[in-house]
Amino acid sequence: MAITARLTAQIDPQSWQHEGLSPFNKFICFAIILSTFMAIVETEPVLTQGYPQVFFWLNILFLVIFSIELLLRIYIAPYSHNHPGINRLRFMISPWTLLDILVLLTFMPVSEDLPLLIIRLIRVFRIIRVSRLTRFNHSLSLLFNSVNKRKTELSISFLIAMVLLLVTSILLYLVEGTSNPESFGSIPRAMWWSIATLTTVGYGDVTPLSPIGKFCAGITALIGIGIVAMPTGILAAAFSEAYQQAKEEKIHHN
Amino acid sequence: MAITARLTAQIDPQSWQHEGLSPFNKFICFAIILSTFMAIVETEPVLTQGYPQVFFWLNILFLVIFSIELLLRIYIAPYSHNHPGINRLRFMISPWTLLDILVLLTFMPVSEDLPLLIIRLIRVFRIIRVSRLTRFNHSLSLLFNSVNKRKTELSISFLIAMVLLLVTSILLYLVEGTSNPESFGSIPRAMWWSIATLTTVGYGDVTPLSPIGKFCAGITALIGIGIVAMPTGILAAAFSEAYQQAKEEKIHHN
Amino acid sequence: MAITARLTAQIDPQSWQHEGLSPFNKFICFAIILSTFMAIVETEPVLTQGYPQVFFWLNILFLVIFSIELLLRIYIAPYSHNHPGINRLRFMISPWTLLDILVLLTFMPVSEDLPLLIIRLIRVFRIIRVSRLTRFNHSLSLLFNSVNKRKTELSISFLIAMVLLLVTSILLYLVEGTSNPESFGSIPRAMWWSIATLTTVGYGDVTPLSPIGKFCAGITALIGIGIVAMPTGILAAAFSEAYQQAKEEKIHHN
Amino acid sequence: MAITARLTAQIDPQSWQHEGLSPFNKFICFAIILSTFMAIVETEPVLTQGYPQVFFWLNILFLVIFSIELLLRIYIAPYSHNHPGINRLRFMISPWTLLDILVLLTFMPVSEDLPLLIIRLIRVFRIIRVSRLTRFNHSLSLLFNSVNKRKTELSISFLIAMVLLLVTSILLYLVEGTSNPESFGSIPRAMWWSIATLTTVGYGDVTPLSPIGKFCAGITALIGIGIVAMPTGILAAAFSEAYQQAKEEKIHHN
Repeated sequence: MAITARLTAQIDPQSWQHEGLSPFNKFICFAIILSTFMAIVETEPVLTQGYPQVFFWLNILFLVIFSIELLLRIYIAPYSHNHPGINRLRFMISPWTLLDILVLLTFMPVSEDLPLLIIRLIRVFRIIRVSRLTRFNHSLSLLFNSVNKRKTELSISFLIAMVLLLVTSILLYLVEGTSNPESFGSIPRAMWWSIATLTTVGYGDVTPLSPIGKFCAGITALIGIGIVAMPTGILAAAFSEAYQQAKEEKIHHN
Repeated sequence: MAITARLTAQIDPQSWQHEGLSPFNKFICFAIILSTFMAIVETEPVLTQGYPQVFFWLNILFLVIFSIELLLRIYIAPYSHNHPGINRLRFMISPWTLLDILVLLTFMPVSEDLPLLIIRLIRVFRIIRVSRLTRFNHSLSLLFNSVNKRKTELSISFLIAMVLLLVTSILLYLVEGTSNPESFGSIPRAMWWSIATLTTVGYGDVTPLSPIGKFCAGITALIGIGIVAMPTGILAAAFSEAYQQAKEEKIHHN
Repeated sequence: MAITARLTAQIDPQSWQHEGLSPFNKFICFAIILSTFMAIVETEPVLTQGYPQVFFWLNILFLVIFSIELLLRIYIAPYSHNHPGINRLRFMISPWTLLDILVLLTFMPVSEDLPLLIIRLIRVFRIIRVSRLTRFNHSLSLLFNSVNKRKTELSISFLIAMVLLLVTSILLYLVEGTSNPESFGSIPRAMWWSIATLTTVGYGDVTPLSPIGKFCAGITALIGIGIVAMPTGILAAAFSEAYQQAKEEKIHHN
Repeated sequence: MAITARLTAQIDPQSWQHEGLSPFNKFICFAIILSTFMAIVETEPVLTQGYPQVFFWLNILFLVIFSIELLLRIYIAPYSHNHPGINRLRFMISPWTLLDILVLLTFMPVSEDLPLLIIRLIRVFRIIRVSRLTRFNHSLSLLFNSVNKRKTELSISFLIAMVLLLVTSILLYLVEGTSNPESFGSIPRAMWWSIATLTTVGYGDVTPLSPIGKFCAGITALIGIGIVAMPTGILAAAFSEAYQQAKEEKIHHN
């Protein structure tokens, strides 16, 4: 019984009495990040060539680690604080557990004879594992609350951005459409340039060539500052308010 | 009479008792966005080729929908809360209604024999429809008020940006004008580079080549951070103040 | 005497009883901006070719306008609020008046036989006229005060940016210096890339080619967000404080 | 004894009674910056060719200056406020002093026969000198404290950025991977594009070519605004709070 209690404390985050994560969950987090990193690297032939064996055996290793983890979670399920008194069988067919089993399948060696897109999709699916990290995370709520509270203002600033995107695209389409049809010959083409300019990304693969087109582009770039400044200002004010409120609540408690 | 009252509630936003928009107006909003999207896509030959019939019939469909909407608005005009007791004829010759009629005309099939620019201008005009969406929107005022209150500060930061644009353009014109005349041979040409750098867009179609030119460009890029930071800071402070004020007013009311 | 008083009110900003600028000063401001715009356009051969006469006569026109303005200012000098009881001769040899005379000289027709750089420098000098606009401007002080108060924090964030610029340049110099000597073969060359990346300008004329170089560049780009965020946050807080203070002072006055 | 006291006041920052740095330390700071600047310039053959003697003798000069400084610091060690009553020998073997001696070694003339990478590493090491500047700096703490207090929020916004980087890379890898393998053929390659877009750097060396790829890239660029806005907003709120607190503490003191 003592061993089961110890295991539960290690594996179930809610049963862990100390701050942060237990050593076992820290190790699992680390393994998730590492296997995600591996799945990313695996897609690049330049990085994998010459080491096919390494990736094969690492996949087997992760398969073993995550299988043991899953079995342990099933074993301690009835003692967990998260879902007290649950049947082990019921836990096994719960959506999260089924997802974990599905994730485990992605570590199975993939036949290279499958069509390229299928292999690609399977590889991508492996990266979903990382989503399990969010289960451990609670602090996200403060940030999301601040953003959520200003949803209306943020949507409006998004709407303004969309209208300006439309207006500047049409402008450049009219001004440069005839002389530069490859880049500005239609509104969707002009929008590709406009979005790169308004977000201040500025790839430079498409730029206006005529003096009047450059003048309009310059004004678009200036408008872009406003489009970046608007949501930044809204978020800054929202965070400021959230901290202020948290401080006031702390004073009232004392 | 009951049908007229129901129709008025559906069509006239002010007569709608519930929150948000009535199903009828939601549908019209959706149709406006869809027809705008179609007008954008229509300008791109790559996307339209092979489907000329689809766009032709969609145009007819939108013509029918917006015609019925207009007729209904004219019918319920005397019962509307927006302009109570108005004559139907008077409503028909009001500016907004005339604009709606004008917009309807843009859905008429356009002869491809017209010169390209005329077709283009007509297509663009169709997108003005989207402006009708703003009629339904009231929340914009809070954001615009905050921006309006800081009009002086924002204009000054714009003025500072203009002066810096001028100074950096002149600098690069003097430094690179002789060795790189294609890109920096005149102040307007240098301004094209300078505006892309100060707004941190950075197309890269024009860059200084000499060491001293690159040194000046580096300083310009650093100044660009300030030009982005200034209006962002002003807006953040303005939004912060507006929220603070709204909160204080709420406390005073209780 | 009545005419002198009226002239003084029109010409001397401090003697003008109403809000804003007097019609005379508005006209002069407009003329300064227009002549600056002309001086910019004049440097671009594409825009001036075919109209040499237009620019010649516009220069003469501005010469006449600003000469009359200067004579009127000298005439009303003794009645001005700005420097009461000043001698007209003394006013003529004051630094601002001498600068005005110097500016007038730049409107004289320039011989095209002069070496190109001299013509360029003279043209550039003409643009100094615009600096006279600042004499009319008083609202700048609030913005500058806020910036000035946070001088220490802004300098430190500038210093941090400089250190990061150095560190990332050295990193890329070590990583890409041998394989890509044209772009990263020395620290100054790497700095050109690094400043474009850290300020998020991103010209794209110089980019790392090796995987490890791209990895380091990605981290540099992420650091760039911080370098933009730091001064923006400092300025936002400074403006927020300045508005708060102005509001509190207003409450204390009532 | 009087000379020793004067020397201590000049050399030891804590013994200096007046504000700022003593003339001696100001000179040393200036020499550190100058020698760093020289070490940077030295790596660029375009700037050094023709002046090999200048750089050789400047290195000797800095060697002499920093040697004298080190000897003086060792001499006044027992009288310093920083480590009172310390033995001169003990001071010599303290880590900071050993680093100073190591730095002095980097000024020794480097043989050009050494392999290029070794020379490069030695040159880079010279720049570590600049780190000594931080010893004189105390104001950094306020900024670092503000950043440190919001460590959790900043890490979360970093995590969100990482997740979005992953998601957008995978998206573009799936959409453009087959048609544009050079740029998007693997997730690491797509990440190079994605990081340049999300940070709004936008080199433009890699851009999607297909319409659907450009659509996804446009959305990525819009998300990039949020990734820049998030930390900026958090920092703005943190600085705002720090200033508020400093002001309140000042009021309580009075």
